[in-house]
Amino acid sequence: MESVPVSLKKLMEHFAALPGIGRKSAQRLAFHLLGLPENEAEDFAASILEARKAIHCCRICQNFTDKEICDICASSKRDGSVICIVESPKDVLAFERLQEYRGRYHVLHGLISPLDGVAPEDIRIRELLPRLQDTGITEIILATNPTIQGEATAMYIARLLKPLGLKVTRLAYGIPMGGELEYTDAVTLNKALENRVDMT
Amino acid sequence: MESVPVSLKKLMEHFAALPGIGRKSAQRLAFHLLGLPENEAEDFAASILEARKAIHCCRICQNFTDKEICDICASSKRDGSVICIVESPKDVLAFERLQEYRGRYHVLHGLISPLDGVAPEDIRIRELLPRLQDTGITEIILATNPTIQGEATAMYIARLLKPLGLKVTRLAYGIPMGGELEYTDAVTLNKALENRVDMT
Repeated sequence: MESVPVSLKKLMEHFAALPGIGRKSAQRLAFHLLGLPENEAEDFAASILEARKAIHCCRICQNFTDKEICDICASSKRDGSVICIVESPKDVLAFERLQEYRGRYHVLHGLISPLDGVAPEDIRIRELLPRLQDTGITEIILATNPTIQGEATAMYIARLLKPLGLKVTRLAYGIPMGGELEYTDAVTLNKALENRVDMT
Repeated sequence: MESVPVSLKKLMEHFAALPGIGRKSAQRLAFHLLGLPENEAEDFAASILEARKAIHCCRICQNFTDKEICDICASSKRDGSVICIVESPKDVLAFERLQEYRGRYHVLHGLISPLDGVAPEDIRIRELLPRLQDTGITEIILATNPTIQGEATAMYIARLLKPLGLKVTRLAYGIPMGGELEYTDAVTLNKALENRVDMT
């Protein structure tokens, strides 16, 4: 790689540091940017800086927004009685894409993970508590990922909310739609069996 | 996607416009950049602008460089009698990784493709001609990709160089090492048979 100029190498390294981008892709992306018209490359760089400057967390739900309070928290069309707790802003997008859920969200920006040194106070659980003063709230949906950390975080929050007497639910576990039983992993199949639903 | 702030959407679109990055990956990358420490995101943006400013094409071989003449063209350790003609700077990297080839390069920055409106004068063929005045040159290796456009470009250059009486070669076609005959496509297998090598 002696033949690669320093600034190009640096650009490749920045791309390679992004999640899911390997050395080869980083190289391809860096070369692509060099081949773009000057103003398009500048626009790309500017969009990074602009997004960083404009975007912060909603004062209420902690989702990314460019306002003080995000559109979902501000909208009177959303059902204020339900809060869906998710790990990251990406999960909010996943739910919004469904166009089914009409409640609000709370974004934790992480999951409790003692092994990685992430304690409850390192994620946005504290910010959830003042929201629960609102007597209009009837249900909290725990929608963390079905991983060890996701489960642990959901359990922690469920225990924390117990004294408040709120209805706390979590997403159903089971076989994914369109999947095949034969290829479903044992843990999932077991969950699907445990949580079987009466059809009579 | 109504809940996505404009500047975040713009950042996602920039990522999605990169080769091999789909909507989902673009979203993940944009969110990742928002989660980085402020200075790292700024560094990323700066590295794009810096690379664009510093990098241009070598006056001789047209490969990317931050100097007037690239390291390979400037190095006295490289064999000036052989020029390997490739489509793009990525191909130079592929050859350099081998650490076998010691000649120099010529980067076309594209392939002739009449259907896409790319004529011979749209790629860096013109820049090759003055290099051939050098009487020290003994061989031109055509190393374009084995695609229709790559073949057409190689044929065009071979014909162009014919009057000069230079030795013009191209990369061997055949079965890839470690591949299996059973899964080799018919065209490749045919080429391998045609170009079979005497082992006695």
